[in-house]
Amino acid sequence: MSQERIVGTTLELARFVAASRVQDMPAPVMHEAKRALLNWAGCALGGCRDQSVDIALAALTEFAGPPQATIIGRGLRSDALSAAAFNGLISNILDFDDTHLRTVIHPSVPVAAALCALAERTPVAGAQLLHAFILGVEVECRIGNAISPEHYDAGWHVTSTCGIFGAAAACAKLLDLNPQQIAWAFGLAANQAAGTTGAHGSMSKSWNMAGAARNGLLSALLAAKGYTSTEQALEGARGFTQVLAKRRDLDEITRGLGQSWELAQNTYKPYPCGIVGHPIIDGGLELHVEKVGADAIESIELRVHPLVQMLMGNPAPRTGLEAKLSVHHCVAAAIIRGEVGVREFTGASAVDPALQALRARVSLNIDPAMPKESTLLSVRLRDGTMIEKKIAHATGSLEKPMSDAALEQKFRAVAASGCPQCDAGAVVELAWSLDQLPDAGAFTRALGPPQTAA
Amino acid sequence: MSQERIVGTTLELARFVAASRVQDMPAPVMHEAKRALLNWAGCALGGCRDQSVDIALAALTEFAGPPQATIIGRGLRSDALSAAAFNGLISNILDFDDTHLRTVIHPSVPVAAALCALAERTPVAGAQLLHAFILGVEVECRIGNAISPEHYDAGWHVTSTCGIFGAAAACAKLLDLNPQQIAWAFGLAANQAAGTTGAHGSMSKSWNMAGAARNGLLSALLAAKGYTSTEQALEGARGFTQVLAKRRDLDEITRGLGQSWELAQNTYKPYPCGIVGHPIIDGGLELHVEKVGADAIESIELRVHPLVQMLMGNPAPRTGLEAKLSVHHCVAAAIIRGEVGVREFTGASAVDPALQALRARVSLNIDPAMPKESTLLSVRLRDGTMIEKKIAHATGSLEKPMSDAALEQKFRAVAASGCPQCDAGAVVELAWSLDQLPDAGAFTRALGPPQTAA
Repeated sequence: MSQERIVGTTLELARFVAASRVQDMPAPVMHEAKRALLNWAGCALGGCRDQSVDIALAALTEFAGPPQATIIGRGLRSDALSAAAFNGLISNILDFDDTHLRTVIHPSVPVAAALCALAERTPVAGAQLLHAFILGVEVECRIGNAISPEHYDAGWHVTSTCGIFGAAAACAKLLDLNPQQIAWAFGLAANQAAGTTGAHGSMSKSWNMAGAARNGLLSALLAAKGYTSTEQALEGARGFTQVLAKRRDLDEITRGLGQSWELAQNTYKPYPCGIVGHPIIDGGLELHVEKVGADAIESIELRVHPLVQMLMGNPAPRTGLEAKLSVHHCVAAAIIRGEVGVREFTGASAVDPALQALRARVSLNIDPAMPKESTLLSVRLRDGTMIEKKIAHATGSLEKPMSDAALEQKFRAVAASGCPQCDAGAVVELAWSLDQLPDAGAFTRALGPPQTAA
Repeated sequence: MSQERIVGTTLELARFVAASRVQDMPAPVMHEAKRALLNWAGCALGGCRDQSVDIALAALTEFAGPPQATIIGRGLRSDALSAAAFNGLISNILDFDDTHLRTVIHPSVPVAAALCALAERTPVAGAQLLHAFILGVEVECRIGNAISPEHYDAGWHVTSTCGIFGAAAACAKLLDLNPQQIAWAFGLAANQAAGTTGAHGSMSKSWNMAGAARNGLLSALLAAKGYTSTEQALEGARGFTQVLAKRRDLDEITRGLGQSWELAQNTYKPYPCGIVGHPIIDGGLELHVEKVGADAIESIELRVHPLVQMLMGNPAPRTGLEAKLSVHHCVAAAIIRGEVGVREFTGASAVDPALQALRARVSLNIDPAMPKESTLLSVRLRDGTMIEKKIAHATGSLEKPMSDAALEQKFRAVAASGCPQCDAGAVVELAWSLDQLPDAGAFTRALGPPQTAA
């Protein structure tokens, strides 16, 4: 029998983070970290000029500290805590980020925003950054697994509430904290975990990511200097999973630590719109490749799960935001334009007469037997021909992941749309060679217009 | 019939804050604001040298911005957001702050910490500061009323979760925001509301106040520049009272706004220990005044409500913190020393042989019929004499409030214990004349060692 004391969930997780070594990381997981960071960087560059960023900078710059870290895409530097906040905001705006499907957590935003800011203040090798990033994603997704789906269903913004733990874990690893300090960082994170879905649809949503990234970093910084907290942040009677969730399975947090990796379950969106519309877009793009012209089409029927109508059933969107929630718009854009990127969800595209004309001929056939991730497009041409496209799994799903080349292409397109001054080629090269970089900060500094020396 | 649209709780509260005028404040409420701020300042000066403050400063100073506002008691200045955080921490450490009994909110800490920091960055007259402070307390306590006691019982640190709304409201008023902006500030506050009681007993507890103060101020600053949020932060389906509370009575938030004032329900602790011990200390102090010496006492029986035993039933405390939860220690200190201040809860006092000897002769007589706020002390002297002291309501209760003079004395004693370099007399004078001060910042700048010009 072991003489060891029974160790609680929080301390066991903290010990795992502290003991983890970069050489233990499986190569595919290290590679997935590069993919996730490249995708994250693209989302950030794509969103960096949003009005909400202008407003946040106008409101908060006067309070910021010395220029320790990059504010992505803006050619600005700020203190690392402020940079973590701004980059959390910036990288979440497009809703084009990655997804851990089981929890609906967008794993990279809070972890990467905190970690990359810290890595400019505390220089580390790229391999260390990748390692800390993997651990951060592991922590946030495992905590999410333990309380999903009830936690999100109750109105909590799970990427924010769990993301703060991921940010804290990643930063704690970069700062080389011991298990007790990491447990304290989790305790501080638990007491700053916040964010509901009640403000979705406003700028407030993405500020949740600012808070998660900044306060996760803050938790690690405080714990590093000996600021104490509980060592039962997750499992305690007044702990995170008790107070913020109706149900919890603590075993999800610690079972098989180091043997499976949540980052391996990460997915990337090829299209910047609701994920249930993605198989439909895949079908539309196939029609485009086959040169089925819009003029030749009499009607399009989409056989879909009821959820698709509920989430993306708007037949006549008037704005870019509404277009993101319209499968009618999505399939029309795919067929006519042969691509569905940020440009297809602008206000101009929402009222493009050609798209309006085709989407008016789209109808939904609601079928509860159709899997959520699948669709059947039935296209009737004016000459009477019928074409069917059956899509079982969309591009970007775990079953049909985006290739490295497709992620690169997405990065270049999104980066160019939001930050044409950024040298996208250089960023791509830095991302794929992150494990070889002597200073990980070079990656973050490349995310925007050229910087003068900090 | 009114043609007006139905206005939700959040917007109605926001309109009230926007429309409120300083000349509408009842004189007793303005005076109560001075009392609350003096008491708050004392608690801050008393706690400013705590180890947790040293650690937080060591961890975070390198990230701070320009010297806009005072860090209380430290002779330091920082950006206003950081100062709000540090002062929230500092003023909560002693657990000597004020209490809104119905919700157990300590109203002043988050509101004053945010507001006083902002008032150094955005100079205002003292009357404006008092007015904004009153409104902040009103907002935080009304929101607390709507969800108490279930919210606290579920493990939420109500001073933190509701305090952020109070800080946001007060700062929004100081910044002269319109109703929509104030509603947005509430939306941003709802999405940053955090803090459980799970880390009580560690340094983490008081960091909840840092977050509430800082992020309440942040919410107002963002909203002021047009950062949008929901306008149904409190009542919405995913709003604060839905996601963070099992039960809500939204009417508590808006009923009789401007006709009653929650600040009028504020109470102040004369003794830095658990509040259920206060009537017992009152009785002990009466015995001291009557010159009943410890040597003459054979035994002391305290007839108390069962809660007293549960919360403060430790007969033999070994540390200062344990002594705060021992009525045996409290009554012994009152009888022997004739005062029960910060000094009576040091480690040295906990093991003072004279106190140990007397408290060993104290016993509890548990009586569920005894009101929580009352006690009966039965003292048997060695000569056979019996003395009884019946205390219906303790000093500091609503029924027997601390006088202005007693608050002043408390301030001087606590300030001297934590920050002897502070000119306590000057602070007292500034507090009582706050409504006449042309620049409210003078009050905050006086809270510590003399400052060089900012």
